[in-house]
Amino acid sequence: MATTLRSIRGVVPLLDRILVQRMKAEAKTASGLYIPEKNVEKLSEAKVLAVGPGALDKDGKRITPGVAPGDRVLIPPFGGSTIKIGDEDYLLFRDSEILAKLTDEK
Amino acid sequence: MATTLRSIRGVVPLLDRILVQRMKAEAKTASGLYIPEKNVEKLSEAKVLAVGPGALDKDGKRITPGVAPGDRVLIPPFGGSTIKIGDEDYLLFRDSEILAKLTDEK
Amino acid sequence: MATTLRSIRGVVPLLDRILVQRMKAEAKTASGLYIPEKNVEKLSEAKVLAVGPGALDKDGKRITPGVAPGDRVLIPPFGGSTIKIGDEDYLLFRDSEILAKLTDEK
Amino acid sequence: MATTLRSIRGVVPLLDRILVQRMKAEAKTASGLYIPEKNVEKLSEAKVLAVGPGALDKDGKRITPGVAPGDRVLIPPFGGSTIKIGDEDYLLFRDSEILAKLTDEK
Amino acid sequence: MATTLRSIRGVVPLLDRILVQRMKAEAKTASGLYIPEKNVEKLSEAKVLAVGPGALDKDGKRITPGVAPGDRVLIPPFGGSTIKIGDEDYLLFRDSEILAKLTDEK
Amino acid sequence: MATTLRSIRGVVPLLDRILVQRMKAEAKTASGLYIPEKNVEKLSEAKVLAVGPGALDKDGKRITPGVAPGDRVLIPPFGGSTIKIGDEDYLLFRDSEILAKLTDEK
Amino acid sequence: MATTLRSIRGVVPLLDRILVQRMKAEAKTASGLYIPEKNVEKLSEAKVLAVGPGALDKDGKRITPGVAPGDRVLIPPFGGSTIKIGDEDYLLFRDSEILAKLTDEK
Repeated sequence: MATTLRSIRGVVPLLDRILVQRMKAEAKTASGLYIPEKNVEKLSEAKVLAVGPGALDKDGKRITPGVAPGDRVLIPPFGGSTIKIGDEDYLLFRDSEILAKLTDEK
Repeated sequence: MATTLRSIRGVVPLLDRILVQRMKAEAKTASGLYIPEKNVEKLSEAKVLAVGPGALDKDGKRITPGVAPGDRVLIPPFGGSTIKIGDEDYLLFRDSEILAKLTDEK
Repeated sequence: MATTLRSIRGVVPLLDRILVQRMKAEAKTASGLYIPEKNVEKLSEAKVLAVGPGALDKDGKRITPGVAPGDRVLIPPFGGSTIKIGDEDYLLFRDSEILAKLTDEK
Repeated sequence: MATTLRSIRGVVPLLDRILVQRMKAEAKTASGLYIPEKNVEKLSEAKVLAVGPGALDKDGKRITPGVAPGDRVLIPPFGGSTIKIGDEDYLLFRDSEILAKLTDEK
Repeated sequence: MATTLRSIRGVVPLLDRILVQRMKAEAKTASGLYIPEKNVEKLSEAKVLAVGPGALDKDGKRITPGVAPGDRVLIPPFGGSTIKIGDEDYLLFRDSEILAKLTDEK
Repeated sequence: MATTLRSIRGVVPLLDRILVQRMKAEAKTASGLYIPEKNVEKLSEAKVLAVGPGALDKDGKRITPGVAPGDRVLIPPFGGSTIKIGDEDYLLFRDSEILAKLTDEK
Repeated sequence: MATTLRSIRGVVPLLDRILVQRMKAEAKTASGLYIPEKNVEKLSEAKVLAVGPGALDKDGKRITPGVAPGDRVLIPPFGGSTIKIGDEDYLLFRDSEILAKLTDEK
């Protein structure tokens, strides 16, 4: 949904929510031809932009989220809440919904 | 639903409920033209008007809500209970449903 | 559902149940014209008539309800159990379903 | 469902189950005319006939039911298990499903 | 479902399962006429044949079932697992599904 | 689903899973006539082939399964995961889904 | 869903997630004839490639997953999240969804 924000930097996730932006697939083939936008497959990769302080456990202590700003992660194909800022879409997931971190390949 | 209230100030949320009012989108384009009301996209931004004392944890202690009156927040696209006072709509969410706080952009 | 009761005063809610009566909307416009009953919008305001002793927590102790007889409250648009006494309808909600208390407006 | 019982007195509810019999509505109008049976509205009032020893809490102790044999109670419009003995119907509810006790009206 | 068993005596219920056999309704009217089998109403009465050692509570201790072999009980109209031995049907319920014990009528 | 296994002996169930093989019904009548395979009723009897180490309780300790390899058991009519090895079907159930043990009939 | 990854080695599962690759069925019959790809039955066998650190128990400690990289396992026929890297599909399951380990057959 739309917001009046001019930048994503003012969004501070609550509890165990993780703010991510989905990586955009190349809209060009390997040989340099442009692919029409509707044919570009959505990626399940995203970049973590901001991380909430963590959900509360049964004793009222914060459960530290498993990811940090800057992390590249795999996100599930469904779920999450979309936020629109200008023309960009962002997503909020719960920490436990993030599938995996992506590291530099060994 | 309707009420006999003349002002929202008399509403005291119970438990972990958060009373918010959704921000209204500009009904004008950047160049000053008016947009018909049904074309104005609803915003997912809201202002916190009042905050309940918090839900009870398993030991009977209050869990302090994560937002406070005056906060600007992101609300989910669905859910919440609508209250109508005069011509204005207000919403009650549970604290854990509020997605993020919005701060002055850095 | 119907009862053989002649008065609501004999109803003693169990556990965390709250007995309320919905406020009736004015069936007259501001200028004094009568509104046909089916056009009168139902209000989400109610008056608390009686309060159960509270649900039991995991240690068997009562959780004191958040409202008291005489309180004006906001009730959710759905749910609750209806009791009919004569021509009047009453509602039983669980304590945690009551959305907010209404105080004298400041 | 049917039973071979000749009397309800042999039914001993288990755990938190409450055996009740629904009160029958008057099949006569105030002026003494008989109302055809299918037009008699079912009442939500019932009399408690027998009470189980209570469900077990997490420590294995019985949770004393909130009603006792002889109590008049409000029962929910749906749910419960019906037992038929001869031509009479009886109902078994769980203790927490009973909405309220009815006392002599003050 | 069918089994290769020749007798129900070899069935030892696990956890909180209760093995019962439904009582058969008289297929004769009071005046001695035979009722066709499909018109004989199923009874909600059953006899307990065997009882599991009980489910485990959160500390790993057995919760003693509320019924014992030989008890006559009321069973719910739905649920349970059917076992067929020869031409006889038996039912396995969980202990908490048994509604009531039936005692000799007082 | 299919596997590349040549024998079921290499399957080691995890947690509280129980590997069983359903008993096959006689495809012959008592008088020695063969029954076409599609008319042979599936049995609810099975033989336990392997047993997982048990699920973890809330303190991280294993809950010992109630059955052991070699046991004959009653399995529920639905559920479980099927594994195919060659032409044979095997089933994995959770320990708590097994209905009863079958012993030599007394 | 697609990724920009060139290799699966950079995927680090979070919590109790297990990254596996399904074994491919022989696309040849025993006598050496090729089976068209759509007729090759999917296998329920998979190889564990990477294992998350474990879910958190109620005291915040990690629950060690029951499988390790290199294990051959049985996976359930449904569920899991698919990741595509180049032309290969990988799957992420939760630890408790893995049915069994496969060992060298005895």
